[in-house]
Amino acid sequence: MNSTIETLLKHRSIRKFLDQPLTKDEIQTIVTSAQAASTSSFIQAYSIIGVKDPEKKRELADAAGGQSYVEENGHFFVFCADLHRHDILGDLHGADLQNTLESTEKFMVALIDASLAAQNATIAAESMGLGICYIGGIRNDLERVSRLLELPDRVIPLFGLAVGHPAQDPDVKPRLPFAEVYHEDRYETDDEMKANLEAYDTSVSKYYEERTGGKRQDTWTEQMAKMLSMKKRMYMKDFVKDKGFNLK
Amino acid sequence: MNSTIETLLKHRSIRKFLDQPLTKDEIQTIVTSAQAASTSSFIQAYSIIGVKDPEKKRELADAAGGQSYVEENGHFFVFCADLHRHDILGDLHGADLQNTLESTEKFMVALIDASLAAQNATIAAESMGLGICYIGGIRNDLERVSRLLELPDRVIPLFGLAVGHPAQDPDVKPRLPFAEVYHEDRYETDDEMKANLEAYDTSVSKYYEERTGGKRQDTWTEQMAKMLSMKKRMYMKDFVKDKGFNLK
Repeated sequence: MNSTIETLLKHRSIRKFLDQPLTKDEIQTIVTSAQAASTSSFIQAYSIIGVKDPEKKRELADAAGGQSYVEENGHFFVFCADLHRHDILGDLHGADLQNTLESTEKFMVALIDASLAAQNATIAAESMGLGICYIGGIRNDLERVSRLLELPDRVIPLFGLAVGHPAQDPDVKPRLPFAEVYHEDRYETDDEMKANLEAYDTSVSKYYEERTGGKRQDTWTEQMAKMLSMKKRMYMKDFVKDKGFNLK
Repeated sequence: MNSTIETLLKHRSIRKFLDQPLTKDEIQTIVTSAQAASTSSFIQAYSIIGVKDPEKKRELADAAGGQSYVEENGHFFVFCADLHRHDILGDLHGADLQNTLESTEKFMVALIDASLAAQNATIAAESMGLGICYIGGIRNDLERVSRLLELPDRVIPLFGLAVGHPAQDPDVKPRLPFAEVYHEDRYETDDEMKANLEAYDTSVSKYYEERTGGKRQDTWTEQMAKMLSMKKRMYMKDFVKDKGFNLK
């Protein structure tokens, strides 16, 4: 196993960082690595905002539900789906791009582009011994985040990425069984899926039991059923449309 | 610079592969690396289909617009947004998850999860000396791809990933300027953007000129304006809804 794959396999989210800001060079390396990711037809439909202003970080932490590590980290990035520059270049060339930019297809492209870039940023950071945590919590209030970062239309903040020197060393969490995630030539049957989920529930339950001295024994399917029973961020459909995405 | 960052920075898509299938071990390492990526609230909302059947690969290549490297490679993966297993686990626990699973928020989560996993797969493959090419072309006809891979509702194929031993050595393509992609504390102004795009157009035009002996001189903004003037995959909005995503 090479050192890159070792880095990938030992990933776990870090939620407590030392009080040591990233250097300018580290930030540059992380962003340049993000930019090197594949992009659909060279469209490069994303932007990254680094948040340094303490007041803005405090507001982001509040929007994300009060997570301390949104405020306290080495650096905080916000990854955005971005088709605003394509609006601008359409104007520059007198081209009407509205139908395309407002399509669900291009909404998907922008999300995929931003995510590929973010994962490259993650791997770059982790390869340097830094820890990271994705912050989906900023999607609790994207109107507020957009105002805070002065985002124009056709830009949607997707998630934050807290990066820094780790001040904790949590365990790697057991993922779904290989056989549940990977199939060959056709999707699995529902019966195969149920067998895989049962095996996984046993291993997740054991993982929690061992780590909590028997206090916690819930399974993955229970956790998910509970979490997904609650409606969450149902404003999103209107929000993304209002920003000029996912309309057509 | 460590070897992982070197791997990230030297990425370019490979569109011609040696006739040498990936080993079972290589496939396992790539998928396990994909699984190690972060996932929103542990939801793991994706699946990966490896396509080995020559007839299915031929059909996929045809659906993707006749790209030979969809058929001829070391292995072909299809990454799917997947909330089907959450439907099944809802049934197992008698929980009604429909509102959540059909939300635009969860559509985004599934796309982001699948993309983070895919980029880990990419980095794992490239760290082993393999080359990759993302295949957005399968989105030309997702109904056909879904039928071919026997995908149930709440599963959407997002893109393919052709992987294999490289039989070509193309150049790295110049990305948008750092200053155009990365901002601190606030988004750039339209004037700043226009200056960045102008600088980028000059470097892209020079890149093409040098590589084509002066035959090609178009700029990035011209390329994009032309490409985005054409409506593309406008069926996507209805398709994803029909599969139970992005409805609410």
